[in-house]
Amino acid sequence: MTPDYNKLSMKMHKKYAGKIETNLKVPLNNTHDLSIAYTPGVAEPCREIAKDEEKGKTLTWRKNLVAVITDGSAVLGLGNIGAAAGMPVMEGKCALFKKFANVDAIPICIKTQDTEEIIHIIKNLEPSFGGINLEDISAPRCFEIERRLKEELHIPVFHDDQHGTAVVTLAALTNALKIIKKKISEVKIVFSGAGAAGIAITKLLLAAGAKNIIVCDSKGAISNNRTDLNAAKSAIEKQTNPKNESGNLKEVIKKADVFIGVSAPNILDSSDITHMEANAIVFAMSNPTPEIMPDEAKKGGAAIIATGRSDYPNQVNNVLVFPGIFRGVFDSGKTEINEKMLLSAAKALAEHVQKPSSEKILPGVFDTGVSDIIAEAVK
Amino acid sequence: MTPDYNKLSMKMHKKYAGKIETNLKVPLNNTHDLSIAYTPGVAEPCREIAKDEEKGKTLTWRKNLVAVITDGSAVLGLGNIGAAAGMPVMEGKCALFKKFANVDAIPICIKTQDTEEIIHIIKNLEPSFGGINLEDISAPRCFEIERRLKEELHIPVFHDDQHGTAVVTLAALTNALKIIKKKISEVKIVFSGAGAAGIAITKLLLAAGAKNIIVCDSKGAISNNRTDLNAAKSAIEKQTNPKNESGNLKEVIKKADVFIGVSAPNILDSSDITHMEANAIVFAMSNPTPEIMPDEAKKGGAAIIATGRSDYPNQVNNVLVFPGIFRGVFDSGKTEINEKMLLSAAKALAEHVQKPSSEKILPGVFDTGVSDIIAEAVK
Repeated sequence: MTPDYNKLSMKMHKKYAGKIETNLKVPLNNTHDLSIAYTPGVAEPCREIAKDEEKGKTLTWRKNLVAVITDGSAVLGLGNIGAAAGMPVMEGKCALFKKFANVDAIPICIKTQDTEEIIHIIKNLEPSFGGINLEDISAPRCFEIERRLKEELHIPVFHDDQHGTAVVTLAALTNALKIIKKKISEVKIVFSGAGAAGIAITKLLLAAGAKNIIVCDSKGAISNNRTDLNAAKSAIEKQTNPKNESGNLKEVIKKADVFIGVSAPNILDSSDITHMEANAIVFAMSNPTPEIMPDEAKKGGAAIIATGRSDYPNQVNNVLVFPGIFRGVFDSGKTEINEKMLLSAAKALAEHVQKPSSEKILPGVFDTGVSDIIAEAVK
Repeated sequence: MTPDYNKLSMKMHKKYAGKIETNLKVPLNNTHDLSIAYTPGVAEPCREIAKDEEKGKTLTWRKNLVAVITDGSAVLGLGNIGAAAGMPVMEGKCALFKKFANVDAIPICIKTQDTEEIIHIIKNLEPSFGGINLEDISAPRCFEIERRLKEELHIPVFHDDQHGTAVVTLAALTNALKIIKKKISEVKIVFSGAGAAGIAITKLLLAAGAKNIIVCDSKGAISNNRTDLNAAKSAIEKQTNPKNESGNLKEVIKKADVFIGVSAPNILDSSDITHMEANAIVFAMSNPTPEIMPDEAKKGGAAIIATGRSDYPNQVNNVLVFPGIFRGVFDSGKTEINEKMLLSAAKALAEHVQKPSSEKILPGVFDTGVSDIIAEAVK
């Protein structure tokens, strides 16, 4: 029987008041220690940074510090629950940063959901952090926030819901295609979901060589017949759907080699999979309930199935990626995270699975060395 | 020989990259742990907080978390060195919070020095923290920022440069007066310094029963003849200087029982002390160089001398106060820090010295139990 994780989680959060804490990393046991860590000695690093702000990134905890920032507008599968209610997830994310890559991380929950205000606030907080991980901010606002911060800040900015998901999905797809012996440049890939994750995965697959992708949102395939597209969807339309197919998901999924879902639960059934090409790859990553349950996908003939869940094989989990990404940029002093790094990270992650099989296309979350190989790839 | 603390401090900051880090306080060793600390279990505390935001203060690390916030406008004795350069001091302060009262604290350095923008940003960050410690923000801006945040936020707000300094000074004065057998209501107290600390100490001494205080700024005594006073000085003028004395510090210090300096180095000499009443009390707290060096004050006949320095007796150090203040409010779930609490804290701190003497009017920084008795007093 599956434990009642809701109940266990409430009990734990009540008992410990969250999951992270701060700690000293230098001794503070007598006035000598105090004179070094605090006055009068501390004046010296202050003066050094006042002369050259860049030194703030090596003489303070900023060197290893990422802020996990949300406005609470798209938290997990819970939707727009607000900044305060997003804290348990952000704190959990910070715990994962520390656990898997020894990156210090603090949660920052911002009350406003106004795009310009969020950008303004984060810009003013730049001297506090070494890097920024945007989290659970709804699309399309998240694209503008990320783009502007990348442009205007001098520290690395990463939106994990986009790029973490994209890297782990590309790694999974790389191994899945290897197993069934198809090439990314030749397969037809159909997406369900054109939010932050869907669009970012699409872009990274294109960069990795995919040529035939159709992205569907809740109204069906994104084609140039559509007149209701926002800027992000409109941009993606220009790079996808080469035959300009129209229709809903169940129509365009016919003859697809790969289905990637980052959308809503239970929108496909086994007959939809039956209409895909032989050796279908089905990544149904809606959380906690996938677009199609693994058993149902298998019934329809899927050769390789992945979900976001830990209770089925092939969990597509961002935690394989984001800790190592920041470990890599902090260790190498990089100030941006670009597409080339993401492609390298995906390649390294795929190669970390020594013998990929239909039940093992990704490393496990607790496999050793994962964040190290990601960090190396980023450097 | 005194060690070169500047050099030792630079070496330490380079080696460790600062002084604090984050840490896990719950296990995260397998998928079971992950399901409790993160998905799917974490959804439950999120939902609870979405229903009632107040629960965010007990179900997350906010329960024990203070943000140490600066704009870098008045850092130590270094002046307006900016947000990035303020970080080593803020991080040190956070280390002290943890060391002396097991309070988690994170440094937040805000780039803008515009009062309204700072207020706006901090208000938007409220869902991230359990309490706010304003630090090293220049006067008179700090008064407005503190006042507005106290009014508009539902978490405790404390400006340590004002109130921490005021509490420890009142405690020191209480014991000093006990030793020389004078009453606070009967002594003439002359201040040098009408910034954040000077004004806050003045207010707390008035609340503790002082009746005859003269505050001097760099232009001399604040009296109702002055036409150049800002709002904060003007307000303090109405409560001080009962005989409306004019003149510079060296004039009005004559016949004073107590001198309290929070201003500039070396502005008094032994002859000034000679002109004070017998058994003069001299708190020369300018840092690192006092308004008058202890030896010089003694030569002038001072009975009790205190400074901000650790290398002389009677160090008046805020670290005796701020950790315990937040320990107290967090343990009791209080949402404000008021004057009554500050008076209780000062009383408790004074009483913690079992046998006050001219060389021991305050507990030492590393004396055990200090933050506990402050926390108890606040509750």
